[in-house]
Amino acid sequence: MAANPSKGRVVAIVGATGAVGEVLLRVLEERAFPVAELRPLASERSTGTTITFRGKQLPVELVRPEAFEGADFVFFAATGELAKELAPEVVKRGAIAIDKSNTWRMDPQVPLCVPEINGAALEKHQGIIASPNCTTTPVVMALAPLRKLAKLESAVVTTFQSVTGAGLPGLEELDAQISAIAAGKPVPPPKKFARQIANNVVPLCETFMDDGYSTEEVKLLHETRKILDDPNFKVSMTCVRVPVPVGHSSSVLLETSPAITPEAAREAFAAFPGIRVLDDPKHNVFPTAADVAGQDDVLIGRVRRDLVSDRLWLWTVGDNLRKGAATNAVQIAEELMRRGLR
Amino acid sequence: MAANPSKGRVVAIVGATGAVGEVLLRVLEERAFPVAELRPLASERSTGTTITFRGKQLPVELVRPEAFEGADFVFFAATGELAKELAPEVVKRGAIAIDKSNTWRMDPQVPLCVPEINGAALEKHQGIIASPNCTTTPVVMALAPLRKLAKLESAVVTTFQSVTGAGLPGLEELDAQISAIAAGKPVPPPKKFARQIANNVVPLCETFMDDGYSTEEVKLLHETRKILDDPNFKVSMTCVRVPVPVGHSSSVLLETSPAITPEAAREAFAAFPGIRVLDDPKHNVFPTAADVAGQDDVLIGRVRRDLVSDRLWLWTVGDNLRKGAATNAVQIAEELMRRGLR
Repeated sequence: MAANPSKGRVVAIVGATGAVGEVLLRVLEERAFPVAELRPLASERSTGTTITFRGKQLPVELVRPEAFEGADFVFFAATGELAKELAPEVVKRGAIAIDKSNTWRMDPQVPLCVPEINGAALEKHQGIIASPNCTTTPVVMALAPLRKLAKLESAVVTTFQSVTGAGLPGLEELDAQISAIAAGKPVPPPKKFARQIANNVVPLCETFMDDGYSTEEVKLLHETRKILDDPNFKVSMTCVRVPVPVGHSSSVLLETSPAITPEAAREAFAAFPGIRVLDDPKHNVFPTAADVAGQDDVLIGRVRRDLVSDRLWLWTVGDNLRKGAATNAVQIAEELMRRGLR
Repeated sequence: MAANPSKGRVVAIVGATGAVGEVLLRVLEERAFPVAELRPLASERSTGTTITFRGKQLPVELVRPEAFEGADFVFFAATGELAKELAPEVVKRGAIAIDKSNTWRMDPQVPLCVPEINGAALEKHQGIIASPNCTTTPVVMALAPLRKLAKLESAVVTTFQSVTGAGLPGLEELDAQISAIAAGKPVPPPKKFARQIANNVVPLCETFMDDGYSTEEVKLLHETRKILDDPNFKVSMTCVRVPVPVGHSSSVLLETSPAITPEAAREAFAAFPGIRVLDDPKHNVFPTAADVAGQDDVLIGRVRRDLVSDRLWLWTVGDNLRKGAATNAVQIAEELMRRGLR
């Protein structure tokens, strides 16, 4: 029997002052999430500040295990280290941890969930639930609807990732560099990114591993396989940082058996919750990062047959702070309530 | 018998005041091209202005067929329409037209030449020679060296193209939008591009055709096949405009038979003229658009084995105004002289 979805829940947010934390607060408000009590938590650096929720100023408290007592949901919008240390403390206290970091995603005990795709994976949760990387979500949202038409074989993905994928420091770095360029002043040297990001594109997101891949790139392969529950699905990828404040775009070349027509793909996308098709090249209709910023839907366009094979090209764009992070986390909590799991 | 390469040539530039025309002047200077007489030409709008060449101010004259009399080389750094109308007038007057527009590239009578790759194609020229699109050149430069190692089967290419691919108006549009953003003012609406380009990426270069592809995208397929002289080589592509002043980057996933190791590929690149390998991820060495701006070499990095197949990923960057346009055009003239064809 489903729990009463309108019963108020006690919600804690770890990292309430960060880029994702701030959007989490807005998403909880917009979706009228049944919050009986909100506990904004952060590391020492941010305690003493306040956040605004439903018109009220709330003090940001230091994150520590005791703050999880009596909570229903604890959203982690913070570093992986913090989620690693503290998610078990959440579980110990009978609450559910919903983590947007990379820490728990590949743990076999932990559902990695995009509710429109694999909400059923939540049934077996053991207290910790992971939300995918902001790069994975818009790609996997574009893949999932096509499974009813054909078997998915492989995807070649090149990403165009916004600076807020690296949080507020990423945005501050872009803004400072743009201001310097506009003023004709020397551009401040990069700190968050490996190169100047304003007026440039940087084929590195996060850090390189020994095999020459970035940590961001391998996430896309493993997370996609786990969410689609298809360990054989092939993903080839290059992940690139671009000077965009919000919104991750990706070019995707998809192989299916049998081949899918662009028309059938567009129909499947349009029928899928959380996707909006913007695809009318003749009238210059296609999605860009600027279109998706502030939107919960994933936008898909440029759906077309490859010129040299029967594969399908598409262009997918998602707000990395919303569907890529905060919105998906809130949707996980909603899905848990809908299924009577809380 | 080769003509004397140091004999002075009469050189005309159609479009001398544009983005590529300006770089052409600099490249002719830097390479000590044997210019006996320089004729800067432009449409009515730019006549009356002057350009600087080897420290001298030269008046820009109106482009008209009579201006080609007695010329050796006429570089077209202008619109396709102008090249279509006037290149035959160059040939009539016994000069050689070297065109960077799209007009003549696929004409079977016209060599489409990257001198390092297919300089021999110049032998059969009939007065008009085409230089490839600024997107094609860095990609085909990365493909050509690998042909001695294996048969090239296919490439999946996603481009990150700078605004000067659309000339000076593209740069002015980016600059104006960046200034507005830095000043917190409303961003001027797009004119040259289909969407705001500052703080955004736009999956459209040039214009859409009826099949949903952009004109830019099909160029990459057909030009690559012509330059490699391989009508069966498969190129899949998405072309994207990014807020970068100069420098076109591309992610390339290459299939060969047999497979090529990253090590062998790097060796072949390093041995090829006009390529510089910047590929040491452990020490954060990889090329970006900012690194290539002002350089004649094509830069290649991020060479690695695909995670799910034996294909090869690489990242290639070229200055679209130099190797993508002006430098390649001057190299064509140099190659013609070297071969005694002028």
